Amino acid sequence: MRFYDCGTAPSPRRARIFIAEKGLDIPTTEISIAKGEQLGADFLKVNPRATVPALETDDGVTLTENLAIATYLEEVGDGPKLMGTTPAQKAEILQWAAIAESQGGTAVAEALRNGNPHMKGRALPGPDNYDQIPELAERGVKRAGRFLEMLEERLTGREWMVGDSFSYADITTFVFVDFARIIKVRVDETKPALNVWYTKMMERPSASL
Amino acid sequence: MRFYDCGTAPSPRRARIFIAEKGLDIPTTEISIAKGEQLGADFLKVNPRATVPALETDDGVTLTENLAIATYLEEVGDGPKLMGTTPAQKAEILQWAAIAESQGGTAVAEALRNGNPHMKGRALPGPDNYDQIPELAERGVKRAGRFLEMLEERLTGREWMVGDSFSYADITTFVFVDFARIIKVRVDETKPALNVWYTKMMERPSASL
Repeated sequence: MRFYDCGTAPSPRRARIFIAEKGLDIPTTEISIAKGEQLGADFLKVNPRATVPALETDDGVTLTENLAIATYLEEVGDGPKLMGTTPAQKAEILQWAAIAESQGGTAVAEALRNGNPHMKGRALPGPDNYDQIPELAERGVKRAGRFLEMLEERLTGREWMVGDSFSYADITTFVFVDFARIIKVRVDETKPALNVWYTKMMERPSASL
Repeated sequence: MRFYDCGTAPSPRRARIFIAEKGLDIPTTEISIAKGEQLGADFLKVNPRATVPALETDDGVTLTENLAIATYLEEVGDGPKLMGTTPAQKAEILQWAAIAESQGGTAVAEALRNGNPHMKGRALPGPDNYDQIPELAERGVKRAGRFLEMLEERLTGREWMVGDSFSYADITTFVFVDFARIIKVRVDETKPALNVWYTKMMERPSASL
């Protein structure tokens, strides 16, 4: 098994935290997005779609989506179950991770990639180059704010995103909430339930990864 | 259990086909997006995020993401297994469905919602109104074309998207390939492997749903 990581990007951070929370030890190769290594010939053999994270499994399959990597490691790996045990829990955990992706992760990525002058021509990850769209950067900031409002509502009266324990849904949500700082959308006291949850997440050792 | 559907939209179609392929019979309420019923007070009680599909389960949980609905029904419902049985299969099926969503579904939706004059102010689903961004419509058409190219590569030498049987990954991919016709991005003989697979998918009774 081999894990392809990038220490500076939110998407591989999700897998990195998941692996750490499971207590798994997987040989890792760092792919520097700053140096464009995800577009290099070596890595394109691993993932032709040129995105990290990626996990080469011992079954001969390479997984290139967080959802797939987590699902696989939940099945074959030791450590605490992070993706639920009952049908309703499993479904809700995947649901809230999907919502965090579409409402949060996408919004922040759109704001960053369409607004940062260093990302000109790289408005989307992957092998193709797309021009920045300034309106999309603006919209992303607005949507990221709405994402935090939705989370405040969700977390009011709840300790965790789903059920009564830490899960893959918390990891995904946390990474995207933390990612939003880069576009200056931040958790503060105006969102008390989110603030309590975020502080608790920040105190976990895996948050430093 | 109650399923909230909309006969004209691709996202609920995924759940509709999944339910049919499992042979499940679930009481259904039609929500007309054309009439704006997803934004009505009654439906907002079911899903405050104002999107279809939604599934009210017998566990007291309402699921509002295709991934969650499929995961739940795969666990509690009868019928053929559509989400894999081994860890690698389960992971790969979720992976290819996620790729079809991000590369295909999103691209076509961006092209349609940002380009269609009838969708002014409704560039994104959900409760908030966002203005159309014409560049995003253009980009969506281009990306949808690239999605079909990627599928041609994936399906060359393969009968199904993952492994040797029909799965949730085929359903998701099919719905978004079919959805692309609305922006005039179509499967034809220039993509023979995709064409064979698409024809085979069109012949299934569930394709008429």
